[in-house]
Amino acid sequence: MSGEDAPAQQQNAVDQKQETKPADEPKSEPPKTESAPAGAAEAAATPAAATEKAPEEETFTYRALVLTGYGGYDKVKLQVKKGKPALKAGEVLVRVKACGLNFADLMARQGLYDRLPSPPVTPGMECSGVVEAVGEEVTDRKVGDKVMVLNRFGLWQEVAAVPASHTFLIPEGMSFEEAAALPVNYITAYMMLFDFGNLRPNQSVLVHAAAGGVGIAATQLCKTVKDVTVFGTASSSKHETISEGGVTHAIDYRTKDYVEEVRKISPKGLDIILDPLGGSDTHKAYNLLKPMGKLITYGAANMLAGQKKNLIAVAKNWYHQFSIHTLSLIQGNKSVCGFHLGYLDGETELISQAMSTILDLYKQGKVKPRIDSTWHLEQVGDAMRKMQERNNIGKVILTTEPMPEEEKKEEPKKEDKKEDKKKEDKKKDDKKKDDGKKEEKKDDKKKEEPKKEEKKEEEKKEEPKKEEK
Amino acid sequence: MSGEDAPAQQQNAVDQKQETKPADEPKSEPPKTESAPAGAAEAAATPAAATEKAPEEETFTYRALVLTGYGGYDKVKLQVKKGKPALKAGEVLVRVKACGLNFADLMARQGLYDRLPSPPVTPGMECSGVVEAVGEEVTDRKVGDKVMVLNRFGLWQEVAAVPASHTFLIPEGMSFEEAAALPVNYITAYMMLFDFGNLRPNQSVLVHAAAGGVGIAATQLCKTVKDVTVFGTASSSKHETISEGGVTHAIDYRTKDYVEEVRKISPKGLDIILDPLGGSDTHKAYNLLKPMGKLITYGAANMLAGQKKNLIAVAKNWYHQFSIHTLSLIQGNKSVCGFHLGYLDGETELISQAMSTILDLYKQGKVKPRIDSTWHLEQVGDAMRKMQERNNIGKVILTTEPMPEEEKKEEPKKEDKKEDKKKEDKKKDDKKKDDGKKEEKKDDKKKEEPKKEEKKEEEKKEEPKKEEK
Repeated sequence: MSGEDAPAQQQNAVDQKQETKPADEPKSEPPKTESAPAGAAEAAATPAAATEKAPEEETFTYRALVLTGYGGYDKVKLQVKKGKPALKAGEVLVRVKACGLNFADLMARQGLYDRLPSPPVTPGMECSGVVEAVGEEVTDRKVGDKVMVLNRFGLWQEVAAVPASHTFLIPEGMSFEEAAALPVNYITAYMMLFDFGNLRPNQSVLVHAAAGGVGIAATQLCKTVKDVTVFGTASSSKHETISEGGVTHAIDYRTKDYVEEVRKISPKGLDIILDPLGGSDTHKAYNLLKPMGKLITYGAANMLAGQKKNLIAVAKNWYHQFSIHTLSLIQGNKSVCGFHLGYLDGETELISQAMSTILDLYKQGKVKPRIDSTWHLEQVGDAMRKMQERNNIGKVILTTEPMPEEEKKEEPKKEDKKEDKKKEDKKKDDKKKDDGKKEEKKDDKKKEEPKKEEKKEEEKKEEPKKEEK
Repeated sequence: MSGEDAPAQQQNAVDQKQETKPADEPKSEPPKTESAPAGAAEAAATPAAATEKAPEEETFTYRALVLTGYGGYDKVKLQVKKGKPALKAGEVLVRVKACGLNFADLMARQGLYDRLPSPPVTPGMECSGVVEAVGEEVTDRKVGDKVMVLNRFGLWQEVAAVPASHTFLIPEGMSFEEAAALPVNYITAYMMLFDFGNLRPNQSVLVHAAAGGVGIAATQLCKTVKDVTVFGTASSSKHETISEGGVTHAIDYRTKDYVEEVRKISPKGLDIILDPLGGSDTHKAYNLLKPMGKLITYGAANMLAGQKKNLIAVAKNWYHQFSIHTLSLIQGNKSVCGFHLGYLDGETELISQAMSTILDLYKQGKVKPRIDSTWHLEQVGDAMRKMQERNNIGKVILTTEPMPEEEKKEEPKKEDKKEDKKKEDKKKDDKKKDDGKKEEKKDDKKKEEPKKEEKKEEEKKEEPKKEEK
C-alpha cells in the first residue's frame, strides 16, 4: 500500500521506444553489448535505429524492463535494446542509476492504470541518474549533472531521453537511491497536504499506509507544520518505525476499526484524510471529517487483490465507489478532492514549485526518503511483490547496477552499503515470508534476494498480505 | 444572488422566543410600548414572560419581525413582543441597531432552508447593536459595547439574547450598517477563498453575482492577494461598480456565456470558482476548473424563481444537482467543496479566527462592506424583494430606527446620510423598476421607499430579474 501515485508528463518515452524498435531500418552490424545482463535478461534482438546515427550509436545497447502484457509479476521482463535514443530539442539523455517503484506501476501491470500505453512498453515514472547528453535548446542542464526524473512512464531502463523540464538537480549529499525515491511520493504528499489540504498548525491528519512511500513522505511533511497530529495506519510490526518517523497515533487496521480508534482520540473527527484505498474506505473517510475537513483521495488500492487482476475486487471497488452530491457537501461543510500525479501532465510549473520546496526541506534535514530495499532490474518481480504484499517500510528501489554472477545463484547478495546486514537474520526472514505465502508460491519465479535492505538489526515480523477491506 | 449564505450557531433565539410567548404565565399589566410601531406593526398581544422577572421586565416590549408561514414577501410580519428576554449564563442582551439580509433568509421564507425552525419564528442571522445587559460568566463583554452578532436565526428584532461568543466588537469607525453587513458575507467569502480555496498569488477566481454581498466581499478579499485575477458575473449595469471594486473581467451572464468568456481569457480554466447557483451551473463550474482547481459551492440560488416556492425550479435544481465520483476527481486533479455558514454551528473558534483576520483587514482599509440600501423593519418585504430580484449592489440592511410618520405615506424618506441623493432620479428609477415588473405587481404591497441608498449620482439602469439558468 505504499506509493499510491504516479508521475507526470509524457510522450517522450514512447518516441524513444519506437526509436529503439524500428522494423524497417537498414540492417546494421550485430551490436556490442555493454553491461550485458547475459543470463537474466532476455536478449531481445531488436535491430538498431540507424537514422542519422553515428556508427557508435548504432551499436549502442542498453537494458530495459518491458511490460510484455497484463498479468502477474512475470509480465515485466528485462530486455536488451539497441540504438541510442535520439534527443529532441529540449531533451536530455539520462544514464539511469536507480528507479522508484510506485503503486501505479502495480496497477499498470494488471491493466488498471490508463496512463501507461498498451504493452509492450517500459514502465517507470521516476528515476535518478546522470545527464549523458543534452539536446538542442537545453540551457539549464549539462553533461555530468546528477538529476532525478519524473515522467509519465519509460524510466525503468538504463538510459532514457526525457524533457529537461522533467529533471531536477539532485542536491549535495543525496544518494541516487534517495533521489529515485523522492519525486512521486513527496510531490504527491506535498500537493495533497499543502495545496488541496491547506494544512495548518494544530490540525489532524489521517495517513493510510503510513509505512508506504507516500505515507512516510506525508508524515514527514506533516511534521514540518506546528502541532499537527498524525494518525497512521499500518500493521503493528511497523508501528515502531512509523512512530519514530512522526506518526502520533499508529493504528493497526488489521485488528482494529480505524474509525473507532480515531474517534476515541478525536471525537469531532479529522481535518485532513489522505485516502489511497478507494471503495468503502472513502465513505468512512468522508464521515470522519470535521466541518471544513478535506478528504483527498488518490488511489484505489482496494482494487488490487492478488498478483493478477481480480475482477471481483475491481467490481467491488467500483460498486462502492464514493460519489457525492453538492448539497451534502454544503450541509457538511466538507471538501472532497482527487489527486494523481499521473494526470498532472504538463503542469510543469506546479510540479517544479512543489519540488523546489521539498528540496529545500531536504536540505534543512526535515524530510528524507526512507529506502525499504534496493533490487536489481532482474529482480523486479520480487520487488513488485514486496510492495504489493505490503511488506515494505518505505520505498522499493531498482538499481541498474549489474547483478554479480554469484547473486544469480539464489545466494543473498553482498550487503554492500550502510551497516552490515546479518545474512542469517535475512535468511530467517525470507524463510518466514515464504512460509506465509504458500498459496502464491506456485507462480513464483526463482526467488532473488534484495541487494540491500535498510532494515534495523532486530528481526521484523513479516506481516500477512493486507486483506482487501 | 447576493449573500448566499447563512450564519452560524443556534438555539438561543428559540429559547428566547419561547420566553416571550409563554402560554401559561400569570397575567401581567398591559405593556407599555416603547418605540411603538403603531400603524405598521401588527401588535401581537403576547402575554409577558413573568418568571423571576422584575416588574419593569414584565412590561418590556420590543418589535420583532416574524415569519408567520412559508410564502411570499408578506409572510414576514412586524409584531410587538412583550417581556425582556432572560439571559442565560454566557449570554448578552443586545439592543439591535441594524440587521443584514441574506439569501438564506429568502430561501427560508419559501421553506427551502432547514436551519430556520418552523414558523412562527424570527429570522435573521446577523445584526449589530449595543450590549444592554450581560449574563453570568460573561467576562469579555460589558454594557455599552458595540457589537456585531452572528446567530443561526432570531436577530431581526429590537433586542436579542445571544451567546457572548457569537458577538464581535465593532472596530472604531465602523457604522452599525457596515457592522450588520459584515459577518455572514465576509466570513463566508473568507473561509471559501482562504480555507477551502487556499488562494495564492497569481491565481484566478470566478465570482458569480459579483455585485451581491458575498460577491463584493470575495472580490475585496481576492485583492488582498497579489496578482489575483477576478472574473465576476453581474448584469452590465453593475459592471462599472464591480470593476471599481476589484473585478478584473466583468461578464454579463444575461447576454453572454460566461464559460466562453472565461475561456477566451483563461483557456486552461480557473483555479477557484465560487458557485452560489447550484444545478447545471455547478457542472459548468467543474468543467471550467484547471488541474488542482477548487470548486466551492455554497448555495442553490437557481432554486429561487419568483416570490413563492417554485416547485419546477426546485425540482430542476435537484434534477441537475451536481454529483461527482472520486475516480473523476482523481483523473481531473480537482476539488469540490461545499460551504454554508448556517451549518457551521459550534465552530466558534474557526469563525472567530476568520473574523479576527477580516477585522484586521478592515482596519487596514483593505475590505469595507458596501451597503446597497437600508430599510425600516416595516419595509422588510420590499427589502427582500430588492435582493431577490437582484436589484442590489452590495448589502441590503434593515434598521430598527423607528419609521417617521411621513414616510409611511408612501413618500420617499429623507436621505439623511452621505451625499444628498437626488430624489428625482430615484423616482425615475423606481418608475422603471415598476414598469419592468408588471407581472409581479399584483401581489405587491404598499411600496415603501428605502430609507437611504448609497447609490452613485449617475442613474443606474435597473436590471430585469435574473432568469433562472
